[in-house]
Amino acid sequence: MKGTRTRQSILDRAVDLASVEGLEGLTIGRLAEDLGMSKSGLFAHFGSKEELQLATVEAAQQRFLAEAFLPALKAERGYARLHAICMSWVSYVRRNVFPGGCFFAAASFEFDGRPGLVRNVKAMEEWVAAIERAIVAAQELGELDAEIEPAQLAFELNSLFFGVNFSYQLRRDRKALMRAEKAIETRLEGLRIVKPARRLRSARR
Amino acid sequence: MKGTRTRQSILDRAVDLASVEGLEGLTIGRLAEDLGMSKSGLFAHFGSKEELQLATVEAAQQRFLAEAFLPALKAERGYARLHAICMSWVSYVRRNVFPGGCFFAAASFEFDGRPGLVRNVKAMEEWVAAIERAIVAAQELGELDAEIEPAQLAFELNSLFFGVNFSYQLRRDRKALMRAEKAIETRLEGLRIVKPARRLRSARR
Repeated sequence: MKGTRTRQSILDRAVDLASVEGLEGLTIGRLAEDLGMSKSGLFAHFGSKEELQLATVEAAQQRFLAEAFLPALKAERGYARLHAICMSWVSYVRRNVFPGGCFFAAASFEFDGRPGLVRNVKAMEEWVAAIERAIVAAQELGELDAEIEPAQLAFELNSLFFGVNFSYQLRRDRKALMRAEKAIETRLEGLRIVKPARRLRSARR
Repeated sequence: MKGTRTRQSILDRAVDLASVEGLEGLTIGRLAEDLGMSKSGLFAHFGSKEELQLATVEAAQQRFLAEAFLPALKAERGYARLHAICMSWVSYVRRNVFPGGCFFAAASFEFDGRPGLVRNVKAMEEWVAAIERAIVAAQELGELDAEIEPAQLAFELNSLFFGVNFSYQLRRDRKALMRAEKAIETRLEGLRIVKPARRLRSARR
């Protein structure tokens, strides 16, 4: 088996390891030890610690997309999709997609304030932007109060995600998942516009 | 100057350093280098890295209390104090009390998922508990909707604090401070009960 693992299976393990021990601690030596591979075998895949960290962030992003984001796109565009994106995120934490908690939240705080390695900011910004787009779409379709500034609501929803990470991961408080769902539900329901037009039309038929 | 610094001034610098570079990177060697002190001089104050980290967490907690929490206790018990505690927290971030952002949020995520050094959990739990007590007091005084579960509201407010940390510290988004204030205001105002009793009485006089 030694040295024969595929790049993808190596990265899967690297993501798990980094989510538990931090991205900074993810060295080629540490990963080689964990996988029972030779360091030279790993060097053939990744030339440096930097490259390994970059590839790991990229792999984590792929896993996040597949597990937390893409499933929500099955919901109809508008309020339903915005709601699905938020709930899908809570479900992703509940399913322990990353063994050490949200990879991006942890990495964000790990490099928070430090110069250098803050590549994961991009992943987080894309995530916040995706929530904002879903809010704008729901507003354009007349399914969400147009008075609320999309960036404000996105900030509030994203804050709940950080809150879950803290309470669930660090305090092992399973209730945090329910609390986040309740808060999302309350906030979104308060801004929801149930369109009467379609109902009236179908009533007339 | 060498070796003559007081324990408190050493710890002040240790807190700043740890808030920027992480608690794990705070070694006696690193701190000695930063302070221009000898390692043996620092060993006289702290016997080990562990002891230094513990003392640094304790010093950070003292600074947090003095800057973010105690000022809010001047507000009248009840809704006013709950409101003041939340706003005082936002102000504490705005004033960059810790140069690398909220010490406790960063340290929480740094040790999130890792066994061992999670002492700062205690500081965070005390903080969440303090918010919960303020909520309960406001409810008991009839100034806040008694229907809302204190732990639920505390979770939501604390989530906003994490949201600010992320957006302000990592994305350098100054609007995050205003957004948090707006979200706190909206949420608390929606639950506020303005007692009519006292007003009626003074009108009768």
